[in-house]
Amino acid sequence: MSGKKQIQVDVEKAVGFKYPVDKVEYNRRDLLIYAAGLNLTDLKFTYELDKGFSAFPTYPLVLPLRGKGHDVNSYAERSKMDNVPGMPAIDLNRLVHGEQYFELLAPLPAEGEFDLESTLVGVFDAGKGMIMDRETIMKDRAGKPLAKMISSAFVIGYGGFGGPRKPKGENVVDTPTTQPDAVDETKTTANQALIYRLSGDYNPLHADPRFGKKLGMKGAFLHGLCTFGISAAAVLRHFGNNDPAAFKSIYGRFASPVYPGETLQTLMWKVAEKDGVTTIAFTTKAKERDLVVISSGTIELNKSKESKL
Amino acid sequence: MSGKKQIQVDVEKAVGFKYPVDKVEYNRRDLLIYAAGLNLTDLKFTYELDKGFSAFPTYPLVLPLRGKGHDVNSYAERSKMDNVPGMPAIDLNRLVHGEQYFELLAPLPAEGEFDLESTLVGVFDAGKGMIMDRETIMKDRAGKPLAKMISSAFVIGYGGFGGPRKPKGENVVDTPTTQPDAVDETKTTANQALIYRLSGDYNPLHADPRFGKKLGMKGAFLHGLCTFGISAAAVLRHFGNNDPAAFKSIYGRFASPVYPGETLQTLMWKVAEKDGVTTIAFTTKAKERDLVVISSGTIELNKSKESKL
Repeated sequence: MSGKKQIQVDVEKAVGFKYPVDKVEYNRRDLLIYAAGLNLTDLKFTYELDKGFSAFPTYPLVLPLRGKGHDVNSYAERSKMDNVPGMPAIDLNRLVHGEQYFELLAPLPAEGEFDLESTLVGVFDAGKGMIMDRETIMKDRAGKPLAKMISSAFVIGYGGFGGPRKPKGENVVDTPTTQPDAVDETKTTANQALIYRLSGDYNPLHADPRFGKKLGMKGAFLHGLCTFGISAAAVLRHFGNNDPAAFKSIYGRFASPVYPGETLQTLMWKVAEKDGVTTIAFTTKAKERDLVVISSGTIELNKSKESKL
Repeated sequence: MSGKKQIQVDVEKAVGFKYPVDKVEYNRRDLLIYAAGLNLTDLKFTYELDKGFSAFPTYPLVLPLRGKGHDVNSYAERSKMDNVPGMPAIDLNRLVHGEQYFELLAPLPAEGEFDLESTLVGVFDAGKGMIMDRETIMKDRAGKPLAKMISSAFVIGYGGFGGPRKPKGENVVDTPTTQPDAVDETKTTANQALIYRLSGDYNPLHADPRFGKKLGMKGAFLHGLCTFGISAAAVLRHFGNNDPAAFKSIYGRFASPVYPGETLQTLMWKVAEKDGVTTIAFTTKAKERDLVVISSGTIELNKSKESKL
């Protein structure tokens, strides 16, 4: 065998690549399944006949893997990696979810069919790996944009190709070092990942302990986006009066995996208020291990009728 | 207003009535949702790629309310009460689930479309109410019977019509008064009913606390069939080596409602072994209130290759 293989990336050619449009759909039951996956108990998110019934605002994050249909096979169909011009073939076992940005652009309907339009918006060299930023716009069938998501994949061992470093995101605030303004605790259950995966991410890593152990972990671990949603719910309860209409955006960096059964502790700081938008910094920890699992957390909330902000 | 209205029932005319055939369907994701509703964690019931993946054997019990389709509206379509010749109109708010019998006739496939053929097999006078026994045979599209269920509804205030008393069922054993041979405890979660209902029984009683309170209860309560399935799982683990192929039948009487969050304690006695069938008597209690919630519980298990019986 020869030495380390040089990774070949043509950043200029790759960035701007438009992925094939994804047709996706969801219904009320899917929203309830997502709420159960986040361990929510508020009836406005868990009971379709509640007068305030609403999608939990981060729901669209599950759509890229969920696809169409209502069975588990939708995952297998869309977990294939697309060929992108200028990019090497990617070994999916080397790909981890590094960061996530999500912005709600309009209220979510209780059901419908949607298009996901995705673009490769950034390829960065992080030394030990490559960062790929994929932006996805969710549109309804009338073409109205409902949500914007930027998912950052970190591809281990694909760095050192001489590409640009990733700049700090505009919406990301520094986490204060002072005492938090609020702390929330949500205990996950032993089957939390088994419930969350029913929203569409059926990756065996989150169910079969053998897969996690192969990666040097204790066993199956929770979906990063499950922790992300639980953190969003904590901030919305504490600073947004639990009003989904107050939700504007969320960003976070996945620092460490969480194991089902652990308690998620979300530490929150109100850091800014400007033009009717309140910015909350947050850090999420696996309480039992006192370990940061989401860092650089940033949530923007709109002033809402119900809000006490 | 006049005095108590006399209930008019023509038992001979009513018994034998065949309900319209129900077309139902399920897929792997539905089996996983049911397993989550029972708080199961064993991968053979919760992970579709497990080599032993199987429907939990009592799954067909959800099909009569589930119907076709994958959204919550399937419930509204089928929760209507059929008109039965010889029977009075039934106020659905007076109807409670009294007893349930379930027998597995053949192994369940991981997905498919099925017919449910239901017959009114008994109408009994219980003094304070009327008992209606409805038998349902689940058949696959080739006409092969897969499961037999007898659901007993107790209709409060509809008794005293001079009908026959209900005899004790053949498959029902007396619960021993000795120390149980095994005791299992399953803690339900605060959102247990919110998860269980995703299998198809969207009755507001199990989600909205106001409905339970109207009936004089503390709030929303767990589906009787959720407690029933959790009890079946306990017996299968302790006496059937958790092998779904060992499951033959289950009977139980719903003695009291359970509130989400309570611990279900299943007390089990091995009472008979004959012709390769082991009979287990069980009682299920809400542990925190030391209250019997399923009485006269009886489970039959087949000897299986894996079984330690």
